[in-house]
Order: sequence, then structure tokens, then C-alpha cells
Amino acid sequence: MKHVIFGESHGSAIGVTLEGVPAGLELDCAQIARELARRATGKNSLSTARKESDAVTFLSGVFEGKTTGTPLTAVIQNSDQHSADYEAIRYTPRPSHGDYAGYIQSGGHLDYRGGGHFSGRLTAPLVAAGAIAKQILAQRGVVVGAHISSIYGINDASLEDPTQLQGVAEKDFPVLDDAAGEQMQEAILAVKAEGDSVGGAIECVVTGLPAGLGAPDFGCNVEGIFSQYLFSVPAVKTVDFGAGVDFAMMRGSEANDPFLVRDGKIVTKTNYAGGINGGITNGMPLVFEVTLRPTPSISLPQESVDLRTGEETEIEINGRHDPCIVHRAVPVVEAAAALASCALLGI
Amino acid sequence: MKHVIFGESHGSAIGVTLEGVPAGLELDCAQIARELARRATGKNSLSTARKESDAVTFLSGVFEGKTTGTPLTAVIQNSDQHSADYEAIRYTPRPSHGDYAGYIQSGGHLDYRGGGHFSGRLTAPLVAAGAIAKQILAQRGVVVGAHISSIYGINDASLEDPTQLQGVAEKDFPVLDDAAGEQMQEAILAVKAEGDSVGGAIECVVTGLPAGLGAPDFGCNVEGIFSQYLFSVPAVKTVDFGAGVDFAMMRGSEANDPFLVRDGKIVTKTNYAGGINGGITNGMPLVFEVTLRPTPSISLPQESVDLRTGEETEIEINGRHDPCIVHRAVPVVEAAAALASCALLGI
Amino acid sequence: MKHVIFGESHGSAIGVTLEGVPAGLELDCAQIARELARRATGKNSLSTARKESDAVTFLSGVFEGKTTGTPLTAVIQNSDQHSADYEAIRYTPRPSHGDYAGYIQSGGHLDYRGGGHFSGRLTAPLVAAGAIAKQILAQRGVVVGAHISSIYGINDASLEDPTQLQGVAEKDFPVLDDAAGEQMQEAILAVKAEGDSVGGAIECVVTGLPAGLGAPDFGCNVEGIFSQYLFSVPAVKTVDFGAGVDFAMMRGSEANDPFLVRDGKIVTKTNYAGGINGGITNGMPLVFEVTLRPTPSISLPQESVDLRTGEETEIEINGRHDPCIVHRAVPVVEAAAALASCALLGI
Amino acid sequence: MKHVIFGESHGSAIGVTLEGVPAGLELDCAQIARELARRATGKNSLSTARKESDAVTFLSGVFEGKTTGTPLTAVIQNSDQHSADYEAIRYTPRPSHGDYAGYIQSGGHLDYRGGGHFSGRLTAPLVAAGAIAKQILAQRGVVVGAHISSIYGINDASLEDPTQLQGVAEKDFPVLDDAAGEQMQEAILAVKAEGDSVGGAIECVVTGLPAGLGAPDFGCNVEGIFSQYLFSVPAVKTVDFGAGVDFAMMRGSEANDPFLVRDGKIVTKTNYAGGINGGITNGMPLVFEVTLRPTPSISLPQESVDLRTGEETEIEINGRHDPCIVHRAVPVVEAAAALASCALLGI
Repeated sequence: MKHVIFGESHGSAIGVTLEGVPAGLELDCAQIARELARRATGKNSLSTARKESDAVTFLSGVFEGKTTGTPLTAVIQNSDQHSADYEAIRYTPRPSHGDYAGYIQSGGHLDYRGGGHFSGRLTAPLVAAGAIAKQILAQRGVVVGAHISSIYGINDASLEDPTQLQGVAEKDFPVLDDAAGEQMQEAILAVKAEGDSVGGAIECVVTGLPAGLGAPDFGCNVEGIFSQYLFSVPAVKTVDFGAGVDFAMMRGSEANDPFLVRDGKIVTKTNYAGGINGGITNGMPLVFEVTLRPTPSISLPQESVDLRTGEETEIEINGRHDPCIVHRAVPVVEAAAALASCALLGI
Repeated sequence: MKHVIFGESHGSAIGVTLEGVPAGLELDCAQIARELARRATGKNSLSTARKESDAVTFLSGVFEGKTTGTPLTAVIQNSDQHSADYEAIRYTPRPSHGDYAGYIQSGGHLDYRGGGHFSGRLTAPLVAAGAIAKQILAQRGVVVGAHISSIYGINDASLEDPTQLQGVAEKDFPVLDDAAGEQMQEAILAVKAEGDSVGGAIECVVTGLPAGLGAPDFGCNVEGIFSQYLFSVPAVKTVDFGAGVDFAMMRGSEANDPFLVRDGKIVTKTNYAGGINGGITNGMPLVFEVTLRPTPSISLPQESVDLRTGEETEIEINGRHDPCIVHRAVPVVEAAAALASCALLGI
Repeated sequence: MKHVIFGESHGSAIGVTLEGVPAGLELDCAQIARELARRATGKNSLSTARKESDAVTFLSGVFEGKTTGTPLTAVIQNSDQHSADYEAIRYTPRPSHGDYAGYIQSGGHLDYRGGGHFSGRLTAPLVAAGAIAKQILAQRGVVVGAHISSIYGINDASLEDPTQLQGVAEKDFPVLDDAAGEQMQEAILAVKAEGDSVGGAIECVVTGLPAGLGAPDFGCNVEGIFSQYLFSVPAVKTVDFGAGVDFAMMRGSEANDPFLVRDGKIVTKTNYAGGINGGITNGMPLVFEVTLRPTPSISLPQESVDLRTGEETEIEINGRHDPCIVHRAVPVVEAAAALASCALLGI
Repeated sequence: MKHVIFGESHGSAIGVTLEGVPAGLELDCAQIARELARRATGKNSLSTARKESDAVTFLSGVFEGKTTGTPLTAVIQNSDQHSADYEAIRYTPRPSHGDYAGYIQSGGHLDYRGGGHFSGRLTAPLVAAGAIAKQILAQRGVVVGAHISSIYGINDASLEDPTQLQGVAEKDFPVLDDAAGEQMQEAILAVKAEGDSVGGAIECVVTGLPAGLGAPDFGCNVEGIFSQYLFSVPAVKTVDFGAGVDFAMMRGSEANDPFLVRDGKIVTKTNYAGGINGGITNGMPLVFEVTLRPTPSISLPQESVDLRTGEETEIEINGRHDPCIVHRAVPVVEAAAALASCALLGI
């Protein structure tokens, strides 16, 4: 299944074109809407005030409620744009946003309004595509789940078992430990009050993938396939499998996952490898964590350069921005993981 | 430039086939040999005792000392194999090695001797390919450098400026701070004495890439392109751009890189973004770190399962193994980064 | 530039998603409309009576009249569908149409109405994409032109020089020799009167491509690249470069194109090779011909099988069909060639 | 399965790297040798006098006689090169050979000796790869066969049924009708005596492919997939499915293949479509024909241009050349078709 996400934040519509969707899947549109609602704004004071209509329309690839196997294009109309907010920053790029790099890449022809194609809004069609992928995976017993693992240094409880993720997707603030979640939300509101933003991390688990998928080779290994999907989620700057960065402090005797037999099946006692050995699934849950940088759009004054004059200048960003996008990114990371899982399964 | 690495540790030869090499490059074979020497074994007591002949032969794609632009196949003969060492583990997979996953993936048809296609030996042709990539990049002013950033929790000095990497490639133990390097080596020898192994991390920098390469989209963003190359290096379990995992503890006001003008050029004051905004290069050095897990091959007894009987068993691994592969992996990570840089430049 | 054509004949809309469009192209929408008008129906009694609204809407990738370089999705709404016409053939596939093969491929889940995704209507977004490609090529001096070379055995005049194609695109019936064109139209009307259809051939020329593009290798040779685009045009069953099938009756001394110098430039005296030697452009005009099979939808009674009962049956096709699609396919073949030319140029 | 053919005619070796070979295939090396013998030179006076050693060595991907599923590199050493023969044509390209286009493409850095990478010799590794593909296909009941359909206007008997191809592969001159084959050989010897060459055509059939493979879309349709493989065979200038160019003279009522039920299976009465409807297999034999241009290397004097001086000049080609390569190309076309069939089957 190949996907192309298209659209700009303040264009007429955003969407996704999917190739290779298996034919005959009875689309559960309510489930797609639920996934989109998980990433939607305006649920509480933690998020941007922009009200988005995220109703998905299928232009193609669906007939009598089922997928036809032909290219499927799903569209979400844009609305409630405040384009005027962005005129001021057209030639004064916001630090650490895609503005400057995108300006150079496009020769100045990018749609600068609302972040254009770089906007977090573009994660809505990704979530829609991921929802379809999840339905395909469900038929094969593959389940994707995630939780916020940390925000601004505040950690969620450790995930010892994938079953702990049950019910987390339904929470407004998807953590294992709601008390930790409260602290995270307080931290977000505190930085919001100061016109600032914070980053965090999301841990994701895919269960049900059989052993033997992938290969050690370039383009075929599980880590490489997943990371390509995960790094296409805006703000993701680290992808970390199993024990991840902690491996740098471990011995082999600690890090190795001994093989055992449980219920007639070969499993590993621990899962530091995150379900992957030699670039191939080993049948254990696939476990990885992504780190998301703080939202670059903050209302504090920042140093920039006027691209017309080449002179340094100070900017203040107006518009409506999220002080933290980690909680909204949980279904987005799941969507990326669902699409990656399909790729791994040859779907 | 596409590459396919082929070969097995105890097969007749290993090598790489490269498509899309620019024509007319005068190959510097001495430089290729130097890069291979950097990853070679037997330099000191830190590494496996296997003596490898890493002489590269070009079967195609080179004529009168220059590349022809046609597919280039480079081959390295294997020698000094002790295949008998591996008979014992044919059906009792080593924990956290590719043995079990590869056995399932291949239906039991993998070449199990010396790790077969999963062997670290396969990084030799990757280094050869990377050496060619470095020569192509050099003509465009692009330079790749790296250092060990930590081993078993012992950190090298911080890299404040890419110029600090000059001369590191020539060191036997490629660190910025040789005192830290001494401690790392002591740690390695200590775990080796106990039949154990350790992991670590490597920081890599690419300078000279122009702003405007890449795109935010799936398959096009800089992080996704690089990570696919980096995760094809055995043992890499984390890829981390710029501030990486630290972003989870930062505010936007700390993490944002202000724009400045220096010598008439737009630069950023800091480089927490690692040279990438919105999936596109911003003209600053590309900075990333990879974490490598401890070598799974340790001589301590470990729990495994006999694949023939399905019964649990204890194994002890003989053969010659590295207690740490981080120092040898430095040129390998550089090679992966050089190939990724070529991909980013459309080469 | 990658493209995905989506939609079904009787769905809500059809369209195309294009990735990799160069940024900053000032879109000439009138030219796109003109190209679409060339393939539109209802111009005369030669074509289906279906009236199609072919107005193109851009959902993304265009800002202030110029391309942004981000994925561009163009949509054409469907209208004037007579879906009831097709109920009768839902389970009795039309001979030589995609019905049966598509039924098997999709497990019976295809949209059978009006040919669904197999409909010739899907060539409208292909023409729109090709029109954009032509605008990109025009900036590089590359021009694509074509004419009907034969219909039902009636041949157009030979194309001796690409300049003969000037003005042909503006003709209602795009031939070099209008007298031959008259005969072709009479032949079409004659078979139409009998409820039958006819096939034909289109010759296409691309001028302005520099020498040295392509390679002999799989996936890189000019013929292979072009044929992939050309065979995605419905009804095309042959792709033929230069002298094509006539090569089977020629000697080397006849078929070889001698090298000459004209105006200080190396050219060939003849162009039997169609501008391609060894899979690489040689700087001469690229010349190829495609053969299109007769429209499979005819109103004469035909033998089919009822897919529900597995029993043989006779069908008569109602609905509105073209007795010949060759004249309407001329801009479609040009569009495919324009996209292929962009691919060859690395765009 | 992806393949890369590497090597130059007068380099040290030629070969192929195959990715994605299914694991566990017991390689029949005798069959590979037989296929290579079918394309070998020196069988009779029809072919070049160059004696080639076509022994295949596997560098990787094979263990204990079976494929491992890892990248497989097969190598054939070069020998009996007469490189000096080619010095004279280094800067005076042979008309209609790849010399000039390749010179421009490589900036003059191609290996000009013996045609370098453009040499027909490079079809040996293609045949080796195809032989492996045939073994994979045989396990799935898919069989590829071909015959010379015409040479210099002399036609072989019509192929009415794929079973006629049995035994043709074993013939020295692979035709259905040996009397026609005698005439073809006489024609070849006659032009050879005059220092000239001739072209021809090959018809190929693939049986056993199930209905429902492929799609109408770009990159997915059967014709597009096959043509990409077929046009990578040197000298192929036309690819023609089913009735091919004859469709231009047919009516729908003649060209349509009626559906019937035979032995409980849906088949078509005729097979003008060549087994493909709407870009998808319909379960009938896949039938296509390729036209091969006359060998451009002839010993008659020809007009060329000296690339150093830019002046016109006359050349005479020495060296050993085939007056016709059609008979030797039969196993090459089968190899390309076998690889394409694997691609279609998702192997």
C-alpha cells in the first residue's frame, strides 16, 4: 500500500491517495471518524482554538461500502482558516519551523499560510489512511497501540505488557498513569501561559506480527521500514527500537533476550530487542519510541531574518498554536505504525 | 545510487553492486583501502582474532581507473573462516542475534556459519561503497565525519563544532577526547575478560549539504532517508537527529534555533534541529547519533531453544567475537551517511 | 514526477495525484482545458453521446497560480452517468473488456458501472497530468506531438519530419492528410452503423530531448520507460520504436542510421532507430507508434458467461460507446509521452 | 525479485545480483547451464567466432545447494577477448550501436571494448537469472516458451497452441517449422557473405499464470511490467501483445474473445488479447511478440563521425560479429519473460 498525503493548511482541501488497498474491505467509517477525533483540536484548553471539520469523503476506491482495490482518494475539506494571521511571517521564517528550508526548496513558491504543506493539519489524512490500515491489520490479528511516554521530562508509567494499552486510546489524554498525565497537562498549561511549548515522547507497540518478516538488508529491515513512516510524522526527531538509547549503557548479558518455550511457542524472556533481531521480526511485540520536538510555533519574540532584505529582525508569531502536540500525535504515530505494518506484511 | 550488499560470512566472497555511480570519477583505491582498514579487525586486543583480507576487486563499472557509470560490482574474497565453530549453534539460536528470526524467515535455509548474511563482516562492502560515495561527495564539498560518542555509559567530549572531527578518522580509537577513549577501552577489556560485551553510540556530522534538499513527505524527508541507510547497519537500534531524545525535556524557546546572518549567509545560532527543518536541510551541518546494541555474541552461557526438538537448552558460543563493535562501526556509520547524502543530492 | 490516477466512471470524481512537480511553474489552465477538450466526447457523431464535464479543480499543490512543489491533486467531477445501463452486465462480463479479469482480481468488489476504474473516462486526469508535464517540458524546449497513423487499415500520410505535426493538435480529427482522415471517419461511421468498432494506431514524436538520457539497463532504458507509460493507456497493445516491426524485414545496412555533421552537430541521416541507441537517446527525435485495439464495447450480441451460475449466455451491451477511440486517444498518448519524457529528464 | 546485470564485454567478469530470491529453492545448475548453452556462440557458422566460457559461479545466496533468500550474485568470467579489434572505433561510433549515445551519456568514460556494457554478452547473466526464475515458476506450474516467428521476412508456422512449443527449446534453431528455419538460416548466411546482418521477431508464451494478476494502472499493468523487462533485451524495438499491430486493421467483433466454459472453467474461444484484459491476466496464455533490429555491427563500410575532430569519416568494423542474433535471443527473451512473470506473481 503506497500513500501520498496532499494539501495545504489553508488550501481548499487536504487528503490522501492510497494505492494497493486490498479489495473487499468493508470500511468502518465510524472507526475512521473516531481516530480523527483523537487527533482533533479543541478538545480542551491544551490545543489550538482552530475548529477543524475532519469529515472524510471518498472520491474513489470505495463501492457499496467496500474497497475496490483501485486507488482510493480520501478528502477532508478545510475551513476556519485565518490566513491573514500569516502574512506577517511570509518573509520572516519562524525558527525551527519548515518555513525557511521550504522557502529555499521551493524557490519561494510555497504556500506559507498556516504552515502550508508543513502544517500539523496534514496529519489528519495520515490518520485516515492509518485507520484504514488498522482495519486491514485487524483482520490479520495485528493491533497497534501507543501512549505518551513522557512530556517535558515527566514520565508515564512503564509499559510492561502490551495489554496495558487497552483503553488508553479512548482517554482524552492517552497515558497509562492518569496521575502522571495530570502533571504533564499542568506542565503544558504552565508553558502555554508563558507563550512557550514543550516536547515529549510516545511509545508504540505492534502486536500480532508473525516472526520472519523483514531482512537485514537496506530497504528491507524492519527498523528502516518503520523509521521511514515514523519520520514522516512532523516533529519526530528520534526513532528508538526496544531498549534504544539505553543499549549504549548495557552489557550483552543484560541486553540479550533469552529464548524460552511458552505454550509450545518460542518466545523471549525479555524484549529489549523490541521484537526485532537482525532486521527481522522475532514474533515478540514490536516496541519503539519516538521523540517529538517542542512545537516551534511559540508566541515569545524570536530572532529571524527578513528574506527580502537579508537583514536580521525580531518576530512575534500570532495565530493559534498548540503548546504541545504530543498527546494529539499519539493516533498519528499509531497511523504511521499501521501503514508500516502493512508494508512489512507485503500489503 | 542504489546499492545491494551480498555475501555470507563463510561464503566464497562478499561484495556490493552499485547502480547509478556517476561516470568519470577517478577512483582513489588507496582511500577505499584506508576506509576498510579503519573497520578491519585485529588492530588490537579489542577485536575478534579473525584475520580478514579486505582487498577490493572491481568486476565491472571501472575502466582505465575511472567509473563508467554502468553497474559497479566490488568483491572482497573471504578467508580464514572457522566454519566448524558454528555447527553447534545451527539449531540453537543465539539470543538477540539474527539466527532465530533468520531461520524462520528463510524456512531454515539460511547460511548459519559465522552469522552468514547477518555477519558484521558484511559491513566491509558497505564501507567500500561508502568510500566511493565519499569521493563523489568530496567533489561537491560535502564531508562526512564521526566519532564514538559513548561506550557503556562513558561519554566522549561534546562535539561543539564539526572541525573537531578533523584527524579523528586517523585515530585507532576514534574519539575526540583520548582520555575518555582510554576509559572506554578499559571498559571493553573488562567486559571481554568476563566473556561479555558492551554497546555504545556514534555521533556523525555531514557538512556542505546545501539548504533546500528533501521534503516533509513520506519517502522524501531527510530523516527518513538517512534512517533507512543507518538502520541497515547491524546493531543500530536508535537514530536521533539534532537534540534527539533531549527534545522530550525541552521547551520551544530552548529548542528553537534562531536565524542570524553571518558573512552574508543565513545561518542558525544553535543547531538543535541537526540541520533539518520540516524534513528539509537548512544549510547547517547535518548532525545525528546512532545507538548500537551490545554485540549479542558473548561467551557466557545463555538460554536458547533447540529448533529441532522445541526444547529449552543452554548454549555457549565459541568462535571469535568482538566484545564491542562501536569503534569498528564508526567508518560503517560514515559510509551509510555518505550513501544517504548521495541519495539526498539525487546521485 | 510520480502520478496516481484515481476514480471510477460513475463515482463522484476522478483525478490524479502528482508528486514531484517542480515548484514555481505558472500553470496555464487554459492549455490544460484545451488538452482535455481534445479528448472530450460529443464533438461529433463519431463518439459516445455521454456529455462530460471536464473542469479541473486543484485541491493542492498550487498557490497564487503557481505550483508549490508539494503533491498536486487535480479533480474532475463526474456527471451525466447512466448507471442503470450497466446493471445487466454486472455478472456477465463483456468480451475483451476488463470486466472479467477485474472481477477475479478484486474478488468481485470492483465498481462495474460504466467500466469503473477501467473506463476510458480515466484518461481525462491522465491528459490533465500530461498537460502539466508539457508545460514543464516547454521550458526545456521539449515538444510532444502525435497523429493518427492508421484506422482500420487506412493509413495517414507518412511523417517525414516532426514539423509536419504543427497544427495537427488543433484539428478535430488529428491526421496529416485530411483526405485520409475523411476515409477513416467514413470507416468508423460504417462500423458504427453495424454496431461494431475499429482499432488503429497513433504515431508520436518527442523533439528536443538531449542525447545521453537513459541507459541500456533494466528500469533505465528509454524504450522501457516510455512503454510503461504508454501501456497504461487503455487499449494500447503494441509499442513500437522507430522502424519497429519493420526491423524484422530489414538488413543492418538498411536499418543503420549513418552519422553526419549538420550545423556543427552530430546527427543521423535517417532515424530508423527512433532516436534511441542502446537504450539511450541519441539526440534525434524520439519516434514511436502505438496500436490500439478496437473498443471492446460493441452492441452486437456476444458470448459471455454468467459469473453467478457459471453458465454460458449471450449478452447485448447497452449504454453509450465509442465505435473508435483512436482519434480521442491522440492527446492521451501525448500525455503519456510527456510524463515519460519528464521521467527521462529526471523530473 | 530485483535484478541488476553488471559487467563489460572485455572486463574481468559479468554477472547478475538478484534480490528477493525465495529461500529454499534447490538450484538445478545443469538447467542453468543448458539455458546458457542455448544462447552460446560458436554452435554453427551463423554466429560470432568468439568462444565464451559461460560457467556460472555463485558468490552468495546459495548454501548447501539451495537458495538462502539473501542477495544472490552469480558471476561468469570473461575470456577470449580481442580488445585490440576495438581500438579503431573508440572515437568513431558505429551507426545504430550504443557507442555514440553511450559516449555522450558517460562523458566519454564508457568501456568501448567489445561494446562494453552494451554488448550482447551481457545477456548471459540475464539468461542465468531467467533460468533461476524458470525454476521458481515451475514450482507454480508456470512455463515460458518461445520460437523465432520471423527472420528477414521469412515466417515460421503460426503458433495455434502453446503445446507446439514443446521440444523447440532443444532445437539448434528454435522454430516450429524446420523447413522455414532452413530458409531463415540460408538468408542469414547470404547476408553474412555480403558483410551484412538481418533482424527478426520472436513470439513468446507464458502458460499457467492465474487470472487476476495486474491492474490497469501505471506501473501495475501486465503489458507495462512485461515490456520493461523485454525492452531491456538489446535490439528489441517492438513489444506486441496478442494480435498486436493487427488490431489496427480489426473490428471489435473480430478482435473480441468470447467467453466460454470448458471443463468447468471460464476461458475465451480465441486469444487475440494475448491473455490480458484491462491490464490484468484473464487466465489464458500470455502471448506476445518482440521485434529485434538487425545487428548494427556489419563489416560493410559505414558513415560515422570522429568524436575528437567532429569530422565525418568512413569506418569499417573488424571484430567478430553475429549476422543475426534472433536465434540466440530466444532464451534471452524467455529469461526476460520469466523474470517478468515472477514480478507479476509478487515474487
